[in-house]
Amino acid sequence: MSRLIYGAGPVRELLAARSGAIKVLHVEPGRAGKAGKDPVAELVVAARAAGVRVVERSRAELDKLAGPDGRHQGVVAECAELSYADVGDLLARADAAGQPALIVVLDGVQDPHNLGAIVRSAYVLGAHGVVIPKDRATAVTPAATKASAGATELLPIAMVGNLARALDELKAAGVWTCAVASGPEARPLADVVAKLGPTTPVALVMGAEGSGVRPLVARGCDFHAEIPMAGQGVGSLNVSVAAGIALYEVVRARRAHGA
Amino acid sequence: MSRLIYGAGPVRELLAARSGAIKVLHVEPGRAGKAGKDPVAELVVAARAAGVRVVERSRAELDKLAGPDGRHQGVVAECAELSYADVGDLLARADAAGQPALIVVLDGVQDPHNLGAIVRSAYVLGAHGVVIPKDRATAVTPAATKASAGATELLPIAMVGNLARALDELKAAGVWTCAVASGPEARPLADVVAKLGPTTPVALVMGAEGSGVRPLVARGCDFHAEIPMAGQGVGSLNVSVAAGIALYEVVRARRAHGA
Repeated sequence: MSRLIYGAGPVRELLAARSGAIKVLHVEPGRAGKAGKDPVAELVVAARAAGVRVVERSRAELDKLAGPDGRHQGVVAECAELSYADVGDLLARADAAGQPALIVVLDGVQDPHNLGAIVRSAYVLGAHGVVIPKDRATAVTPAATKASAGATELLPIAMVGNLARALDELKAAGVWTCAVASGPEARPLADVVAKLGPTTPVALVMGAEGSGVRPLVARGCDFHAEIPMAGQGVGSLNVSVAAGIALYEVVRARRAHGA
Repeated sequence: MSRLIYGAGPVRELLAARSGAIKVLHVEPGRAGKAGKDPVAELVVAARAAGVRVVERSRAELDKLAGPDGRHQGVVAECAELSYADVGDLLARADAAGQPALIVVLDGVQDPHNLGAIVRSAYVLGAHGVVIPKDRATAVTPAATKASAGATELLPIAMVGNLARALDELKAAGVWTCAVASGPEARPLADVVAKLGPTTPVALVMGAEGSGVRPLVARGCDFHAEIPMAGQGVGSLNVSVAAGIALYEVVRARRAHGA
Protein backbone atom coordinates (compact mmCIF):
# COMPACT_ATOMS: atom_id res chain seq x y z
CA MET A 1 0.00 0.00 0.00
CA SER A 2 1.52 3.26 -1.14
CA ARG A 3 1.15 6.69 0.33
CA LEU A 4 -1.46 8.60 -1.67
CA ILE A 5 -2.41 12.22 -1.95
CA TYR A 6 -5.41 13.37 -3.96
CA GLY A 7 -7.42 16.37 -4.96
CA ALA A 8 -6.31 19.23 -7.23
CA GLY A 9 -5.36 21.56 -4.36
CA PRO A 10 -3.20 19.18 -2.31
CA VAL A 11 -1.51 17.78 -5.45
CA ARG A 12 -0.80 21.31 -6.71
CA GLU A 13 0.84 22.13 -3.35
CA LEU A 14 2.82 18.91 -3.37
CA LEU A 15 4.06 19.54 -6.92
CA ALA A 16 5.13 23.05 -5.96
CA ALA A 17 6.69 22.06 -2.63
CA ARG A 18 8.14 18.59 -3.16
CA SER A 19 7.56 17.23 -6.65
CA GLY A 20 10.39 14.76 -6.06
CA ALA A 21 8.19 12.97 -3.51
CA ILE A 22 5.74 11.90 -6.24
CA LYS A 23 6.48 8.53 -7.82
CA VAL A 24 3.46 8.49 -10.16
CA LEU A 25 0.64 10.93 -10.84
CA HIS A 26 -2.61 9.12 -11.68
CA VAL A 27 -5.07 11.27 -13.67
CA GLU A 28 -8.48 10.82 -15.23
CA PRO A 29 -8.11 10.05 -18.98
CA GLY A 30 -8.99 12.77 -21.41
CA ARG A 31 -8.21 15.42 -18.85
CA ALA A 32 -4.56 15.55 -19.90
CA GLY A 33 -5.59 16.73 -23.37
CA LYS A 34 -8.08 19.39 -22.27
CA ALA A 35 -7.00 22.95 -22.79
CA GLY A 36 -6.91 25.99 -20.57
CA LYS A 37 -8.66 26.17 -17.24
CA ASP A 38 -9.06 22.47 -16.39
CA PRO A 39 -7.15 22.09 -13.09
CA VAL A 40 -6.09 18.51 -13.79
CA ALA A 41 -4.72 19.45 -17.22
CA GLU A 42 -2.68 22.21 -15.55
CA LEU A 43 -1.34 19.71 -13.01
CA VAL A 44 -0.35 17.32 -15.81
CA VAL A 45 1.62 20.11 -17.48
CA ALA A 46 3.32 20.98 -14.17
CA ALA A 47 4.05 17.32 -13.39
CA ARG A 48 5.62 16.69 -16.80
CA ALA A 49 7.71 19.85 -16.45
CA ALA A 50 8.95 18.52 -13.08
CA GLY A 51 9.78 15.12 -14.59
CA VAL A 52 6.94 13.28 -12.77
CA ARG A 53 5.52 10.20 -14.50
CA VAL A 54 1.84 10.64 -15.43
CA VAL A 55 -0.49 7.64 -15.88
CA GLU A 56 -4.13 7.77 -17.03
CA ARG A 57 -6.74 5.97 -14.91
CA SER A 58 -10.49 5.59 -15.22
CA ARG A 59 -12.66 7.47 -12.73
CA ALA A 60 -13.58 4.10 -11.19
CA GLU A 61 -9.90 3.27 -10.66
CA LEU A 62 -9.26 6.67 -9.09
CA ASP A 63 -12.33 6.23 -6.84
CA LYS A 64 -10.91 2.91 -5.69
CA LEU A 65 -7.42 4.35 -5.12
CA ALA A 66 -8.66 7.33 -3.12
CA GLY A 67 -11.31 5.43 -1.12
CA PRO A 68 -14.73 6.56 0.09
CA ASP A 69 -13.44 9.61 1.96
CA GLY A 70 -11.25 10.80 -0.89
CA ARG A 71 -12.45 13.70 -3.01
CA HIS A 72 -9.80 13.10 -5.69
CA GLN A 73 -11.18 15.44 -8.39
CA GLY A 74 -9.54 13.33 -11.11
CA VAL A 75 -6.01 13.31 -9.70
CA VAL A 76 -4.15 11.00 -7.29
CA ALA A 77 -0.41 11.23 -6.53
CA GLU A 78 1.45 8.11 -5.38
CA CYS A 79 4.30 9.16 -3.10
CA ALA A 80 7.65 7.84 -1.91
CA GLU A 81 8.51 6.92 1.69
CA LEU A 82 8.13 9.68 4.24
CA SER A 83 11.12 11.47 5.71
CA TYR A 84 10.47 12.83 9.19
CA ALA A 85 11.26 16.41 10.15
CA ASP A 86 12.75 17.62 13.43
CA VAL A 87 11.32 20.17 15.85
CA GLY A 88 13.47 22.92 14.32
CA ASP A 89 11.87 22.35 10.90
CA LEU A 90 8.42 22.97 12.40
CA LEU A 91 9.55 26.22 13.99
CA ALA A 92 11.21 27.27 10.72
CA ARG A 93 7.90 26.75 8.91
CA ALA A 94 6.14 29.12 11.31
CA ASP A 95 8.97 31.66 10.92
CA ALA A 96 8.84 31.43 7.13
CA ALA A 97 5.09 32.08 7.23
CA GLY A 98 5.58 35.02 9.59
CA GLN A 99 3.09 33.45 12.02
CA PRO A 100 3.24 32.57 15.72
CA ALA A 101 3.95 28.84 15.81
CA LEU A 102 1.00 26.44 16.14
CA ILE A 103 2.20 22.89 16.74
CA VAL A 104 0.45 19.69 17.80
CA VAL A 105 2.34 17.29 20.09
CA LEU A 106 0.91 13.77 20.40
CA ASP A 107 1.74 11.88 23.60
CA GLY A 108 1.39 8.30 22.44
CA VAL A 109 -1.50 8.15 19.95
CA GLN A 110 -1.78 4.47 18.98
CA ASP A 111 -4.31 4.43 16.15
CA PRO A 112 -2.99 5.42 12.69
CA HIS A 113 -6.49 6.66 11.75
CA ASN A 114 -6.43 9.08 14.67
CA LEU A 115 -2.90 10.20 13.77
CA GLY A 116 -3.95 10.73 10.15
CA ALA A 117 -7.10 12.64 11.10
CA ILE A 118 -5.07 14.89 13.41
CA VAL A 119 -2.45 15.63 10.74
CA ARG A 120 -5.28 16.43 8.31
CA SER A 121 -6.87 18.87 10.77
CA ALA A 122 -3.50 20.42 11.62
CA TYR A 123 -2.76 21.00 7.95
CA VAL A 124 -6.21 22.29 6.99
CA LEU A 125 -6.41 24.61 10.00
CA GLY A 126 -2.94 26.03 9.33
CA ALA A 127 -0.73 24.48 12.03
CA HIS A 128 3.02 24.28 11.29
CA GLY A 129 3.63 20.66 12.17
CA VAL A 130 3.02 17.66 14.39
CA VAL A 131 5.41 16.04 16.87
CA ILE A 132 5.11 12.30 17.57
CA PRO A 133 7.22 10.02 19.80
CA LYS A 134 9.31 7.20 18.36
CA ASP A 135 8.14 4.62 20.93
CA ARG A 136 4.76 3.37 22.15
CA ALA A 137 2.90 5.28 19.42
CA THR A 138 1.95 4.79 15.80
CA ALA A 139 4.31 6.03 13.09
CA VAL A 140 3.06 7.56 9.83
CA THR A 141 1.80 4.33 8.27
CA PRO A 142 0.03 4.15 4.87
CA ALA A 143 -3.26 3.96 6.84
CA ALA A 144 -2.34 7.21 8.59
CA THR A 145 -1.54 8.89 5.26
CA LYS A 146 -4.88 7.74 3.86
CA ALA A 147 -6.79 8.98 6.91
CA SER A 148 -4.93 12.28 6.56
CA ALA A 149 -6.21 12.69 2.97
CA GLY A 150 -2.55 13.14 2.01
CA ALA A 151 -1.72 15.81 4.56
CA THR A 152 1.13 13.67 5.96
CA GLU A 153 3.00 14.52 2.72
CA LEU A 154 2.45 18.25 3.10
CA LEU A 155 2.86 19.02 6.79
CA PRO A 156 6.19 18.39 8.54
CA ILE A 157 5.98 15.63 11.13
CA ALA A 158 8.80 15.39 13.67
CA MET A 159 9.49 12.01 15.28
CA VAL A 160 11.34 12.39 18.58
CA GLY A 161 13.00 9.96 20.97
CA ASN A 162 12.02 11.89 24.07
CA LEU A 163 8.82 13.90 24.22
CA ALA A 164 9.75 15.80 27.41
CA ARG A 165 12.95 16.98 25.72
CA ALA A 166 11.00 18.06 22.62
CA LEU A 167 8.72 20.14 24.87
CA ASP A 168 11.82 21.72 26.44
CA GLU A 169 13.13 22.51 22.96
CA LEU A 170 9.82 24.18 22.06
CA LYS A 171 9.79 26.17 25.30
CA ALA A 172 13.38 27.30 24.73
CA ALA A 173 12.24 28.63 21.34
CA GLY A 174 9.52 30.71 23.01
CA VAL A 175 6.61 28.34 22.40
CA TRP A 176 4.10 27.96 25.25
CA THR A 177 2.97 24.39 25.85
CA CYS A 178 -0.64 23.56 26.63
CA ALA A 179 -1.81 20.08 27.67
CA VAL A 180 -5.37 19.42 26.47
CA ALA A 181 -6.75 17.07 29.12
CA SER A 182 -9.34 17.00 31.89
CA GLY A 183 -8.10 17.29 35.44
CA PRO A 184 -8.12 19.43 38.56
CA GLU A 185 -5.53 21.84 37.10
CA ALA A 186 -7.35 22.26 33.79
CA ARG A 187 -9.27 25.40 32.88
CA PRO A 188 -11.74 25.76 30.00
CA LEU A 189 -9.98 25.73 26.63
CA ALA A 190 -11.42 29.10 25.54
CA ASP A 191 -10.17 30.77 28.74
CA VAL A 192 -6.66 29.36 28.33
CA VAL A 193 -6.49 30.40 24.68
CA ALA A 194 -7.75 33.89 25.56
CA LYS A 195 -5.09 34.13 28.27
CA LEU A 196 -2.35 33.02 25.87
CA GLY A 197 -3.41 35.74 23.45
CA PRO A 198 -3.52 35.65 19.66
CA THR A 199 0.18 36.25 18.95
CA THR A 200 1.75 33.71 21.34
CA PRO A 201 3.41 30.63 19.79
CA VAL A 202 1.55 27.56 21.07
CA ALA A 203 2.09 23.80 21.19
CA LEU A 204 -1.08 21.79 21.92
CA VAL A 205 -0.22 18.54 23.71
CA MET A 206 -2.80 15.77 23.17
CA GLY A 207 -2.86 12.49 25.09
CA ALA A 208 -3.23 8.92 23.91
CA GLU A 209 -6.61 7.29 23.35
CA GLY A 210 -7.94 6.15 26.71
CA SER A 211 -5.05 7.16 28.95
CA GLY A 212 -4.68 10.85 28.03
CA VAL A 213 -1.57 12.98 28.54
CA ARG A 214 0.92 11.17 30.83
CA PRO A 215 1.47 12.93 34.21
CA LEU A 216 5.18 13.47 33.54
CA VAL A 217 4.40 15.18 30.23
CA ALA A 218 1.45 17.16 31.65
CA ARG A 219 3.62 18.47 34.52
CA GLY A 220 6.05 19.83 31.94
CA CYS A 221 3.34 21.92 30.26
CA ASP A 222 2.79 25.62 30.90
CA PHE A 223 -1.03 25.44 30.66
CA HIS A 224 -3.72 22.81 31.16
CA ALA A 225 -6.92 23.20 29.15
CA GLU A 226 -10.07 21.11 29.00
CA ILE A 227 -12.90 21.01 26.51
CA PRO A 228 -16.16 21.55 28.45
CA MET A 229 -18.25 18.37 28.56
CA ALA A 230 -21.97 18.00 29.22
CA GLY A 231 -21.52 16.53 32.69
CA GLN A 232 -19.87 13.89 34.85
CA GLY A 233 -19.33 10.41 33.52
CA VAL A 234 -20.27 11.04 29.91
CA GLY A 235 -17.02 9.66 28.52
CA SER A 236 -14.48 11.56 26.48
CA LEU A 237 -14.07 12.90 22.98
CA ASN A 238 -12.12 10.97 20.37
CA VAL A 239 -8.55 12.36 20.40
CA SER A 240 -8.76 13.48 16.77
CA VAL A 241 -11.96 15.43 17.48
CA ALA A 242 -10.39 16.95 20.61
CA ALA A 243 -7.30 17.98 18.62
CA GLY A 244 -9.50 19.54 15.93
CA ILE A 245 -11.42 21.54 18.54
CA ALA A 246 -8.22 22.73 20.26
CA LEU A 247 -6.70 23.82 16.93
CA TYR A 248 -9.95 25.53 15.95
CA GLU A 249 -10.05 27.49 19.21
CA VAL A 250 -6.51 28.84 18.69
CA VAL A 251 -7.19 29.70 15.03
CA ARG A 252 -10.52 31.37 15.93
CA ALA A 253 -8.82 33.57 18.54
CA ARG A 254 -6.02 34.51 16.13
CA ARG A 255 -8.51 35.38 13.37
CA ALA A 256 -10.69 37.44 15.69
CA HIS A 257 -7.55 39.40 16.59
CA GLY A 258 -6.52 39.81 12.95
CA ALA A 259 -9.98 41.02 11.87
CA MET B 1 -20.73 -8.41 16.71
CA SER B 2 -22.83 -6.96 19.50
CA ARG B 3 -23.35 -3.39 20.44
CA LEU B 4 -21.07 -2.56 23.39
CA ILE B 5 -20.93 0.25 25.87
CA TYR B 6 -18.12 0.58 28.40
CA GLY B 7 -16.73 2.72 31.15
CA ALA B 8 -18.28 3.27 34.59
CA GLY B 9 -19.94 6.59 33.67
CA PRO B 10 -21.69 5.54 30.44
CA VAL B 11 -22.76 2.19 31.95
CA ARG B 12 -24.15 3.96 35.04
CA GLU B 13 -26.17 6.25 32.77
CA LEU B 14 -27.38 3.33 30.66
CA LEU B 15 -28.45 1.38 33.77
CA ALA B 16 -30.33 4.41 35.06
CA ALA B 17 -31.89 5.34 31.71
CA ARG B 18 -32.49 2.05 29.91
CA SER B 19 -31.34 -0.99 31.90
CA GLY B 20 -33.62 -3.15 29.72
CA ALA B 21 -31.28 -2.47 26.77
CA ILE B 22 -28.45 -4.40 28.47
CA LYS B 23 -28.28 -8.10 27.61
CA VAL B 24 -25.17 -8.90 29.68
CA LEU B 25 -22.91 -6.80 31.91
CA HIS B 26 -19.28 -7.97 31.72
CA VAL B 27 -17.21 -6.98 34.77
CA GLU B 28 -13.67 -7.50 36.00
CA PRO B 29 -13.59 -10.41 38.49
CA GLY B 30 -13.10 -9.60 42.14
CA ARG B 31 -14.64 -6.18 41.64
CA ALA B 32 -18.12 -7.56 42.32
CA GLY B 33 -17.09 -8.49 45.85
CA LYS B 34 -15.37 -5.24 46.77
CA ALA B 35 -17.13 -3.07 49.28
CA GLY B 36 -18.14 0.55 49.31
CA LYS B 37 -16.78 3.07 46.88
CA ASP B 38 -15.61 0.84 43.99
CA PRO B 39 -17.66 2.13 41.03
CA VAL B 40 -17.83 -1.28 39.32
CA ALA B 41 -19.10 -2.94 42.51
CA GLU B 42 -21.81 -0.29 42.72
CA LEU B 43 -22.76 -0.96 39.09
CA VAL B 44 -22.96 -4.70 39.78
CA VAL B 45 -25.39 -4.02 42.66
CA ALA B 46 -27.48 -1.72 40.43
CA ALA B 47 -27.44 -4.22 37.55
CA ARG B 48 -28.57 -7.11 39.75
CA ALA B 49 -31.32 -4.94 41.24
CA ALA B 50 -32.49 -4.20 37.69
CA GLY B 51 -32.43 -7.89 36.76
CA VAL B 52 -29.42 -7.56 34.40
CA ARG B 53 -27.22 -10.65 33.99
CA VAL B 54 -23.65 -10.04 35.29
CA VAL B 55 -20.69 -12.11 34.00
CA GLU B 56 -17.10 -11.89 35.25
CA ARG B 57 -14.33 -11.43 32.67
CA SER B 58 -10.57 -11.05 32.97
CA ARG B 59 -9.08 -7.62 32.31
CA ALA B 60 -7.54 -9.05 29.10
CA GLU B 61 -10.98 -10.19 27.90
CA LEU B 62 -12.48 -6.79 28.67
CA ASP B 63 -9.58 -5.08 26.85
CA LYS B 64 -10.31 -7.23 23.82
CA LEU B 65 -14.07 -6.57 23.99
CA ALA B 66 -13.69 -2.81 24.30
CA GLY B 67 -10.84 -2.46 21.78
CA PRO B 68 -7.86 -0.08 21.74
CA ASP B 69 -9.93 3.09 22.02
CA GLY B 70 -12.10 1.79 24.84
CA ARG B 71 -11.41 3.00 28.38
CA HIS B 72 -13.65 0.31 29.92
CA GLN B 73 -12.62 0.76 33.58
CA GLY B 74 -13.52 -2.85 34.34
CA VAL B 75 -17.07 -2.81 32.93
CA VAL B 76 -18.54 -3.53 29.48
CA ALA B 77 -22.29 -3.74 28.75
CA GLU B 78 -23.49 -5.83 25.82
CA CYS B 79 -26.67 -4.27 24.43
CA ALA B 80 -29.74 -5.28 22.44
CA GLU B 81 -30.65 -4.02 18.98
CA LEU B 82 -31.08 -0.27 18.64
CA SER B 83 -34.50 1.32 18.33
CA TYR B 84 -34.44 4.61 16.46
CA ALA B 85 -36.08 7.73 17.82
CA ASP B 86 -38.06 10.31 15.87
CA VAL B 87 -37.43 14.05 15.60
CA GLY B 88 -40.01 14.72 18.32
CA ASP B 89 -38.07 12.57 20.81
CA LEU B 90 -34.97 14.73 20.27
CA LEU B 91 -36.93 17.91 20.90
CA ALA B 92 -38.52 16.35 23.99
CA ARG B 93 -35.05 15.58 25.38
CA ALA B 94 -34.07 19.24 25.06
CA ASP B 95 -37.34 20.30 26.70
CA ALA B 96 -36.87 17.85 29.56
CA ALA B 97 -33.36 19.24 30.16
CA GLY B 98 -34.69 22.81 30.05
CA GLN B 99 -32.11 23.65 27.37
CA PRO B 100 -32.36 25.20 23.91
CA ALA B 101 -32.21 22.26 21.49
CA LEU B 102 -28.85 21.31 20.00
CA ILE B 103 -29.26 18.70 17.27
CA VAL B 104 -26.93 17.32 14.61
CA VAL B 105 -28.41 16.45 11.20
CA LEU B 106 -26.24 14.30 8.92
CA ASP B 107 -26.87 14.62 5.19
CA GLY B 108 -25.64 11.27 3.93
CA VAL B 109 -22.61 10.29 6.04
CA GLN B 110 -21.44 6.96 4.58
CA ASP B 111 -18.75 5.77 6.99
CA PRO B 112 -19.97 4.11 10.22
CA HIS B 113 -16.79 5.27 11.99
CA ASN B 114 -17.61 8.87 11.15
CA LEU B 115 -21.23 8.39 12.27
CA GLY B 116 -20.04 6.82 15.53
CA ALA B 117 -17.49 9.55 16.19
CA ILE B 118 -20.15 12.23 15.58
CA VAL B 119 -22.66 10.56 17.94
CA ARG B 120 -19.88 10.34 20.56
CA SER B 121 -19.08 14.04 20.23
CA ALA B 122 -22.77 14.99 20.24
CA TYR B 123 -23.32 13.01 23.44
CA VAL B 124 -20.19 14.19 25.25
CA LEU B 125 -20.75 17.84 24.31
CA GLY B 126 -24.39 17.73 25.43
CA ALA B 127 -26.41 17.71 22.18
CA HIS B 128 -29.93 16.26 22.35
CA GLY B 129 -29.78 13.90 19.40
CA VAL B 130 -28.68 13.12 15.87
CA VAL B 131 -30.84 12.85 12.73
CA ILE B 132 -29.76 10.51 9.93
CA PRO B 133 -31.47 9.67 6.63
CA LYS B 134 -32.77 6.17 5.87
CA ASP B 135 -31.26 6.06 2.37
CA ARG B 136 -27.79 6.61 0.90
CA ALA B 137 -26.19 6.80 4.35
CA THR B 138 -24.88 4.42 6.99
CA ALA B 139 -27.24 3.19 9.70
CA VAL B 140 -26.11 2.65 13.31
CA THR B 141 -24.05 -0.49 12.67
CA PRO B 142 -22.01 -2.30 15.37
CA ALA B 143 -18.94 -0.51 13.97
CA ALA B 144 -20.69 2.83 14.50
CA THR B 145 -21.58 1.91 18.09
CA LYS B 146 -17.97 0.91 18.75
CA ALA B 147 -16.64 4.16 17.24
CA SER B 148 -19.17 6.04 19.38
CA ALA B 149 -17.73 4.45 22.56
CA GLY B 150 -21.31 3.38 23.32
CA ALA B 151 -22.91 6.79 22.86
CA THR B 152 -25.31 5.36 20.24
CA GLU B 153 -27.06 3.62 23.18
CA LEU B 154 -27.39 6.81 25.19
CA LEU B 155 -28.25 9.55 22.71
CA PRO B 156 -31.48 9.38 20.68
CA ILE B 157 -30.85 8.92 16.97
CA ALA B 158 -33.75 9.65 14.60
CA MET B 159 -33.78 7.91 11.23
CA VAL B 160 -35.92 9.80 8.71
CA GLY B 161 -37.17 9.02 5.21
CA ASN B 162 -36.90 12.61 4.03
CA LEU B 163 -34.25 14.94 5.39
CA ALA B 164 -35.83 18.12 3.96
CA ARG B 165 -39.08 17.26 5.75
CA ALA B 166 -37.19 16.63 9.01
CA LEU B 167 -35.62 20.10 8.68
CA ASP B 168 -39.11 21.57 8.16
CA GLU B 169 -40.29 19.76 11.29
CA LEU B 170 -37.37 21.22 13.27
CA LYS B 171 -38.05 24.71 11.93
CA ALA B 172 -41.75 24.41 12.79
CA ALA B 173 -40.66 23.62 16.37
CA GLY B 174 -38.61 26.82 16.52
CA VAL B 175 -35.21 25.30 15.79
CA TRP B 176 -32.90 27.31 13.52
CA THR B 177 -31.06 25.23 10.93
CA CYS B 178 -27.42 25.88 10.10
CA ALA B 179 -25.59 24.14 7.25
CA VAL B 180 -21.89 23.70 8.07
CA ALA B 181 -20.23 23.84 4.65
CA SER B 182 -17.91 26.05 2.65
CA GLY B 183 -19.44 28.16 -0.08
CA PRO B 184 -20.16 31.69 -1.25
CA GLU B 185 -23.09 32.06 1.17
CA ALA B 186 -21.17 30.78 4.18
CA ARG B 187 -19.93 33.03 6.97
CA PRO B 188 -17.39 32.09 9.66
CA LEU B 189 -18.85 29.61 12.16
CA ALA B 190 -18.10 31.81 15.18
CA ASP B 191 -19.94 34.78 13.58
CA VAL B 192 -23.01 32.67 12.77
CA VAL B 193 -23.12 31.19 16.28
CA ALA B 194 -22.74 34.67 17.81
CA LYS B 195 -25.60 35.91 15.60
CA LEU B 196 -27.82 32.98 16.61
CA GLY B 197 -27.20 33.80 20.26
CA PRO B 198 -26.78 31.46 23.21
CA THR B 199 -30.46 30.65 23.83
CA THR B 200 -31.60 29.82 20.29
CA PRO B 201 -32.41 26.17 19.50
CA VAL B 202 -30.01 25.04 16.75
CA ALA B 203 -29.70 22.13 14.33
CA LEU B 204 -26.24 21.76 12.77
CA VAL B 205 -26.47 20.19 9.30
CA MET B 206 -23.31 18.34 8.25
CA GLY B 207 -22.65 17.03 4.73
CA ALA B 208 -21.40 13.68 3.51
CA GLU B 209 -17.70 12.86 3.23
CA GLY B 210 -16.42 14.34 -0.01
CA SER B 211 -19.62 15.83 -1.39
CA GLY B 212 -20.75 17.96 1.56
CA VAL B 213 -24.29 19.21 2.21
CA ARG B 214 -26.49 18.68 -0.88
CA PRO B 215 -27.66 21.93 -2.52
CA LEU B 216 -31.35 21.13 -1.95
CA VAL B 217 -30.72 20.56 1.76
CA ALA B 218 -28.42 23.60 2.08
CA ARG B 219 -31.05 25.86 0.45
CA GLY B 220 -33.50 24.77 3.13
CA CYS B 221 -31.21 25.95 5.93
CA ASP B 222 -31.56 29.29 7.72
CA PHE B 223 -27.80 29.85 8.10
CA HIS B 224 -24.62 28.76 6.31
CA ALA B 225 -21.45 28.54 8.38
CA GLU B 226 -17.91 27.57 7.46
CA ILE B 227 -14.93 26.61 9.59
CA PRO B 228 -12.05 28.92 8.62
CA MET B 229 -9.30 27.05 6.76
CA ALA B 230 -5.66 28.00 6.31
CA GLY B 231 -6.01 28.88 2.64
CA GLN B 232 -7.17 27.81 -0.79
CA GLY B 233 -6.82 24.23 -1.90
CA VAL B 234 -5.78 22.72 1.40
CA GLY B 235 -8.53 20.13 1.40
CA SER B 236 -11.26 19.76 3.97
CA LEU B 237 -11.71 18.56 7.52
CA ASN B 238 -12.98 15.07 8.25
CA VAL B 239 -16.74 15.34 8.78
CA SER B 240 -16.50 14.02 12.36
CA VAL B 241 -13.90 16.66 13.23
CA ALA B 242 -16.00 19.38 11.57
CA ALA B 243 -19.09 18.25 13.52
CA GLY B 244 -17.08 18.28 16.77
CA ILE B 245 -15.89 21.82 16.08
CA ALA B 246 -19.38 23.07 15.20
CA LEU B 247 -20.84 21.51 18.37
CA TYR B 248 -18.00 22.94 20.45
CA GLU B 249 -18.59 26.45 19.08
CA VAL B 250 -22.29 26.37 20.04
CA VAL B 251 -21.54 24.94 23.50
CA ARG B 252 -18.75 27.49 24.08
CA ALA B 253 -21.07 30.37 23.23
CA ARG B 254 -23.83 29.02 25.48
CA ARG B 255 -21.40 28.53 28.39
CA ALA B 256 -19.91 32.00 27.98
CA HIS B 257 -23.48 33.33 28.24
CA GLY B 258 -24.27 31.19 31.31
CA ALA B 259 -21.09 32.24 33.14
